[in-house]
Amino acid sequence: MTKGLKIATIGGGSSYTPELVEGFIKRYDELPIRELWLVDIEAGKEKMEIVGNLAKRMIEKAGLPIDVHLTLDRRAALKDADFVTTQFRVGLLEARAKDERIPLKYGVLGQETNGPGGLFKGLRTIPVILDICKDMEELCPNAWLINFTNPAGMVTEAVLRYSNIKKVVGLCNVPIGIEMGIAKLLDVDHSRIRIDFAGLNHMVYGLDVYVDGVSVREEVIEKLTDPANSSFVKNIEGIGWEPEFIKSLGVLTCPYHMYYYKTRQMLEKDMKNADGEGTRAEVVQKLETELFELYKDPNLAIKPPQLEKRGGAYYSDAAVRLITSIYTDKRDIQPVNTMNNGAIASIPADSAVEISCVITKDGPKPIAIGDLPVPVRGLVQQIKSFERIGAEAAVTGDYNTAVLAMTINPLSPSDTIAKQIVDEMMEAHKEHLPQFFGKKEVVKA
Amino acid sequence: MTKGLKIATIGGGSSYTPELVEGFIKRYDELPIRELWLVDIEAGKEKMEIVGNLAKRMIEKAGLPIDVHLTLDRRAALKDADFVTTQFRVGLLEARAKDERIPLKYGVLGQETNGPGGLFKGLRTIPVILDICKDMEELCPNAWLINFTNPAGMVTEAVLRYSNIKKVVGLCNVPIGIEMGIAKLLDVDHSRIRIDFAGLNHMVYGLDVYVDGVSVREEVIEKLTDPANSSFVKNIEGIGWEPEFIKSLGVLTCPYHMYYYKTRQMLEKDMKNADGEGTRAEVVQKLETELFELYKDPNLAIKPPQLEKRGGAYYSDAAVRLITSIYTDKRDIQPVNTMNNGAIASIPADSAVEISCVITKDGPKPIAIGDLPVPVRGLVQQIKSFERIGAEAAVTGDYNTAVLAMTINPLSPSDTIAKQIVDEMMEAHKEHLPQFFGKKEVVKA
Amino acid sequence: MTKGLKIATIGGGSSYTPELVEGFIKRYDELPIRELWLVDIEAGKEKMEIVGNLAKRMIEKAGLPIDVHLTLDRRAALKDADFVTTQFRVGLLEARAKDERIPLKYGVLGQETNGPGGLFKGLRTIPVILDICKDMEELCPNAWLINFTNPAGMVTEAVLRYSNIKKVVGLCNVPIGIEMGIAKLLDVDHSRIRIDFAGLNHMVYGLDVYVDGVSVREEVIEKLTDPANSSFVKNIEGIGWEPEFIKSLGVLTCPYHMYYYKTRQMLEKDMKNADGEGTRAEVVQKLETELFELYKDPNLAIKPPQLEKRGGAYYSDAAVRLITSIYTDKRDIQPVNTMNNGAIASIPADSAVEISCVITKDGPKPIAIGDLPVPVRGLVQQIKSFERIGAEAAVTGDYNTAVLAMTINPLSPSDTIAKQIVDEMMEAHKEHLPQFFGKKEVVKA
Amino acid sequence: MTKGLKIATIGGGSSYTPELVEGFIKRYDELPIRELWLVDIEAGKEKMEIVGNLAKRMIEKAGLPIDVHLTLDRRAALKDADFVTTQFRVGLLEARAKDERIPLKYGVLGQETNGPGGLFKGLRTIPVILDICKDMEELCPNAWLINFTNPAGMVTEAVLRYSNIKKVVGLCNVPIGIEMGIAKLLDVDHSRIRIDFAGLNHMVYGLDVYVDGVSVREEVIEKLTDPANSSFVKNIEGIGWEPEFIKSLGVLTCPYHMYYYKTRQMLEKDMKNADGEGTRAEVVQKLETELFELYKDPNLAIKPPQLEKRGGAYYSDAAVRLITSIYTDKRDIQPVNTMNNGAIASIPADSAVEISCVITKDGPKPIAIGDLPVPVRGLVQQIKSFERIGAEAAVTGDYNTAVLAMTINPLSPSDTIAKQIVDEMMEAHKEHLPQFFGKKEVVKA
Repeated sequence: MTKGLKIATIGGGSSYTPELVEGFIKRYDELPIRELWLVDIEAGKEKMEIVGNLAKRMIEKAGLPIDVHLTLDRRAALKDADFVTTQFRVGLLEARAKDERIPLKYGVLGQETNGPGGLFKGLRTIPVILDICKDMEELCPNAWLINFTNPAGMVTEAVLRYSNIKKVVGLCNVPIGIEMGIAKLLDVDHSRIRIDFAGLNHMVYGLDVYVDGVSVREEVIEKLTDPANSSFVKNIEGIGWEPEFIKSLGVLTCPYHMYYYKTRQMLEKDMKNADGEGTRAEVVQKLETELFELYKDPNLAIKPPQLEKRGGAYYSDAAVRLITSIYTDKRDIQPVNTMNNGAIASIPADSAVEISCVITKDGPKPIAIGDLPVPVRGLVQQIKSFERIGAEAAVTGDYNTAVLAMTINPLSPSDTIAKQIVDEMMEAHKEHLPQFFGKKEVVKA
Repeated sequence: MTKGLKIATIGGGSSYTPELVEGFIKRYDELPIRELWLVDIEAGKEKMEIVGNLAKRMIEKAGLPIDVHLTLDRRAALKDADFVTTQFRVGLLEARAKDERIPLKYGVLGQETNGPGGLFKGLRTIPVILDICKDMEELCPNAWLINFTNPAGMVTEAVLRYSNIKKVVGLCNVPIGIEMGIAKLLDVDHSRIRIDFAGLNHMVYGLDVYVDGVSVREEVIEKLTDPANSSFVKNIEGIGWEPEFIKSLGVLTCPYHMYYYKTRQMLEKDMKNADGEGTRAEVVQKLETELFELYKDPNLAIKPPQLEKRGGAYYSDAAVRLITSIYTDKRDIQPVNTMNNGAIASIPADSAVEISCVITKDGPKPIAIGDLPVPVRGLVQQIKSFERIGAEAAVTGDYNTAVLAMTINPLSPSDTIAKQIVDEMMEAHKEHLPQFFGKKEVVKA
Repeated sequence: MTKGLKIATIGGGSSYTPELVEGFIKRYDELPIRELWLVDIEAGKEKMEIVGNLAKRMIEKAGLPIDVHLTLDRRAALKDADFVTTQFRVGLLEARAKDERIPLKYGVLGQETNGPGGLFKGLRTIPVILDICKDMEELCPNAWLINFTNPAGMVTEAVLRYSNIKKVVGLCNVPIGIEMGIAKLLDVDHSRIRIDFAGLNHMVYGLDVYVDGVSVREEVIEKLTDPANSSFVKNIEGIGWEPEFIKSLGVLTCPYHMYYYKTRQMLEKDMKNADGEGTRAEVVQKLETELFELYKDPNLAIKPPQLEKRGGAYYSDAAVRLITSIYTDKRDIQPVNTMNNGAIASIPADSAVEISCVITKDGPKPIAIGDLPVPVRGLVQQIKSFERIGAEAAVTGDYNTAVLAMTINPLSPSDTIAKQIVDEMMEAHKEHLPQFFGKKEVVKA
Repeated sequence: MTKGLKIATIGGGSSYTPELVEGFIKRYDELPIRELWLVDIEAGKEKMEIVGNLAKRMIEKAGLPIDVHLTLDRRAALKDADFVTTQFRVGLLEARAKDERIPLKYGVLGQETNGPGGLFKGLRTIPVILDICKDMEELCPNAWLINFTNPAGMVTEAVLRYSNIKKVVGLCNVPIGIEMGIAKLLDVDHSRIRIDFAGLNHMVYGLDVYVDGVSVREEVIEKLTDPANSSFVKNIEGIGWEPEFIKSLGVLTCPYHMYYYKTRQMLEKDMKNADGEGTRAEVVQKLETELFELYKDPNLAIKPPQLEKRGGAYYSDAAVRLITSIYTDKRDIQPVNTMNNGAIASIPADSAVEISCVITKDGPKPIAIGDLPVPVRGLVQQIKSFERIGAEAAVTGDYNTAVLAMTINPLSPSDTIAKQIVDEMMEAHKEHLPQFFGKKEVVKA
């Protein structure tokens, strides 16, 4: 380790990369990176070069001895890596736009992580992740896989169940966003806030929230009844909870809960957006085009502030503090996706959960919370069922299993509509679903 | 016991009573009843007399020495009873009609057992049941409480959690209806069929189905894709499952699953019915009026065949075979609602489940099934959360808890609409919800 | 199945065989056996012929069309069998005598099933059982394996964990012996007794006991304080429980519990016996010699009454009623060793337990008991740890694991003495422990 | 909190007090104590004054503004306390000497924490602790109870089950002693060592051990086979594990495991000591006499180095770092006794365990470990059964329950001897067991 660390970032051409690089620069003292390998596929080559050159300029400006490598050769990037981060998007934003738009045609929310759209994102992504895992077994068996690729819950579940890579952590910027949002709400520094997170990715609850170790849960919940406070991530506008509901629920929600506890309003909003400014993917596509224009500027050597609108706020913080804590055996508490191991009683011990963990060099160690409060246990279990069946469909390429996963999603209005959506999406994403089309024709009724 | 058994039937004026009486007559050899006490409230007195006189004629015709008592004095009926059966309906069918109609105004299924309507049925019923339990502690502490009153799952949960009566069984005719339906489907005698039932009331699955002990699950599931076969109870018309869905689900469903896996179609159907022939409650009201006309006929001394349309098919069989098996320590297998006790891993050990049990004199002993299949675990857990929070609202009379219960029901489209429905139903059922109105005004936003 | 059943009995030369044959004869109406294959190894050939000929005479006398085959070819016996029963003894009674005597030299009880002796019985037996399982996979994949070979708990655990045979039941005559003993104690017919058994093989408790379904637990426990009543099997003489102990324990014990709750007295007794009449194995050896003399008598065509002294009382009843209930899908309750499946909360779901089950054609279905009473939970868990580590040692042939298993046995006084006993027993049983000696020399300190 | 903290130390006259005071002085910067109340009973008044005056001199020498109060009025000491620490000994060392000597007369180890002696220590201590808890509810409901009084496991279990005080932590110097011992063994600084502790008090295992976050488990286990390394606390001399045993066990043991895995040797040693230098209590009595002579010296104003022989090494470190971490919400990892909450799967969620926890202002949060390794699960469960039944006996004063607890202790050789030991100890400790004698005469056979 004296020679410094090697990081391989799959999907290196992502617009998020400057966030990550900024993070590496800030924590260089603790995290002595020597090589940063950005790897992408042919279709992402141009973007990777733009963002890669920005990365080089940022590092140069910081005066750090980090070598940035840009490559299409994933195996070269993985070879002897210490950490592998994944932020790729199979089918790019075009695919996400389909994930969002197609369900809407059937009067159903697309919800591109835990919802119908998320199922197809999982079906496209999981085979690629498992392929990366196979390469890692061979090329960097001691590396940690830090996965940011959504749906992070289903992907982490799939890696735990279907690969031999055990050193995997799923990471999301939602919990850190909630922490930051509450810090702002209470006007205290982020470092003084601690939240007991437990649940699943994008279905995580804050069982309690503390300032300097003293619970302020009731005060925060009171504030959550104000629409202005109910969302903490840029990409989901808050609607506000009914005071009676949120008070008796008694725990902090995450922004994605609005899809499940405010389904009808969110559907109306998404439909209106789809007819207006476009779905979130389409909005982001425009943002990204603008971002890459900025990135091209040879005089730019910092992360441009416009990136924050992109929705990845605190992404860099979350990612780099996790990697740093693993590398330095810091033993601080962070919310990540990892194997449950009994920390939440009603979720199987071998399933992925998103939970506050102590981060050690040996990986995240979840803090036992007993069980989730009764009112949230059901919805969490339902998303867990969805994640498991979705992961199974992704791995087996079994069409019926995909219909099952879609039907049991809480946003699905019936088996019949689920099947219709699956059929249309299967066709739309055909090129990225070889496991369903390679082996045999999709059976249709 | 030599003097014969005393049965107390709360809600004795129900149109179902002749079913029950028929059952007692058929099994008299095994179940030597000496006294049958039908008890009802003032408002049900007339009906009780009509049906009570029919009961007397039926018993007389059978030539059995069973004394039928008709009374408004519940305590007299309970005194030294061996079995207490409950089939009352707080607010009568008028209340059920509201349970079904009000949610429809908000574009939401009423579903009067596990759905939004069922919540209010629970809120009305649970305090009465707990009151009966208190009387039983004093007047017949060794009696078994056999509860048929819906929502049977939430009611059984409430008795287990909030009363001292441990000898309680919740009973439903849905599982026996499925057995009968499958027997017919396969053209074999009912006695040759066995199903491994597990789940919750009206949310029960058949994990496997056997003829003479040999699994025929795949054959039966194949048949379930035919709409004509997808329902086994008279009061829910089958729509048919998508073959891909039901085959990958891999277990037998119950008719009530259509509300959850075919929500949109069921909503359309219920709305159409509400505009046409009326909701199920309204249809039943008409049927009941006709039934009571028949019951009045002094020459009638049998259960009239028209009763079967009422929806309570096999009710008598289910009820009397359960009581008989307890009384005779028969040790046969029957699906009932009882304390889980670890039989289903992902449901708390102290919660009510509907599961195949060995029926002994010491009560039902659930057969351990390990855990529910992954795809159904989520929905079952969600209904269990709903039952628990609903029961808590019924006991505490806390308005916020009622809003919470309504919001987390899988049929609820949002916290906002949930609150609106709660408000309208709370008002509509005011007279039967003293726990919410007696203590303090309902808080409204 | 019209052609009748084929039974293969491994260890057919056992002195128990006439018991089994008597059982088959008695239940022939329900259990239409056409072929009974007795199979043994070369060393047991003579005994098998003696006992096989007696079997033939018994069947002839009963006038039944059952063909008895005597063979040394195990594969021929297994081919297309419906039930495979195992009652063999690797190393014969000579090996058992060593299991009992060697530990005594170190001041330690041999206890040849759950104790130090039992470990070596397991080490000798498990590889042979797993070999039979492999043959079954190929030759009779649909057959049920009914294992009587001790240590039945460790053997069933090993089959569940290390073979592909899932249709396995471990059977013991201890529970039926307790039922019979209590029937006698209470002077009621055996059919009226039911006991809720739960625990492990030879470590099973009766959580409650009923006559005609009514609990008589307290009365029975009171009687268990009388030494005359404290044992129900012929081969363990009762010593009597301290009244304070058994009353606060609150559950029925099995005779083998005396080794664990009366260790010092049992050790004194066994040491005295070893110096006097011989260990149990040595006593049985004499009994067996006498029995085989009787069996040789060509005029004998019934099970001789002397067999009862052998210790296998009710063995025939237990075995044949189990096979009959499986074959006829009888759904009666029997205590057997099977996969826990959540029936006992503190034992892993995938471990073997001895528990009251409903016996169906699909196998035994354990009745959920919640959890064992607190005072017995520890000892049961300790034996379960022993069974699992013992099974692991048997399969891996790892010497250190054998020392570990011996050390954690509750009868073991220290790691040092455990190692000494292992070393001496390993040498004494060398020829039957190829997994330890074949691969490499046993490591010694 | 601006005014500084109030600490109440019950059993303030203990020879350990200078340790504690030294710790408070060292961490004064983080832990601003204003009042330290030492409280003791009449019989301990003289010792308290000696040690209290030493405490005053130590604080004065350190120049800190901590007021030391010496009192016999427990309620005054508890009033508005922030932390309550308990280090009292009901019956003093005389009672411990009986706990150790009486069982030896029956050839049984006394083992004064988890063994037969420990049962009586628990029976004497638990009623007093529960009484303190009642006072705390009234006088300092927000205080933390930090219990050092042995048997810390049984006592913590009792507080969790039988009092309303939920802010309780049981503390022991064994884990920190192991950490220190291993640091020395590996010649690295203590701060670089981390151990994943899990189990029960004095029955705790180190599932893994890390230096700078990297596992060194195998290396450490190798070293544990050397007798010189097998014990890490002054009061238990190491004997050394059999290499085969400890390697296949695969986890770190604690010194008290020698009583259970080396029972016979420990018995021989304890018997020899009892005949020679005296039992541990008797040795400690002499040490204490010497210590108090030293403490009297008005020129002594530091903790005398001789205290270390007493066996409480690192006691101050463990106690003060725990209190400091709670007070400052430090979120570091410490092994303490707290409610399991699912952290160890095979132990009930509501039982006390000793486990590595994150220490927050809201108390210790256990880190989920999944389950204990199979070979240790049994012994841990057995001690947990013992602790629970022992606590029940202490609370109910039921003689039969005490006999049950003694019988199920792994060191007990039989129910008969258990009863004899109980009888003799009950008589010997009569004055400190009012719950057994107050209500009714102890029943004897």
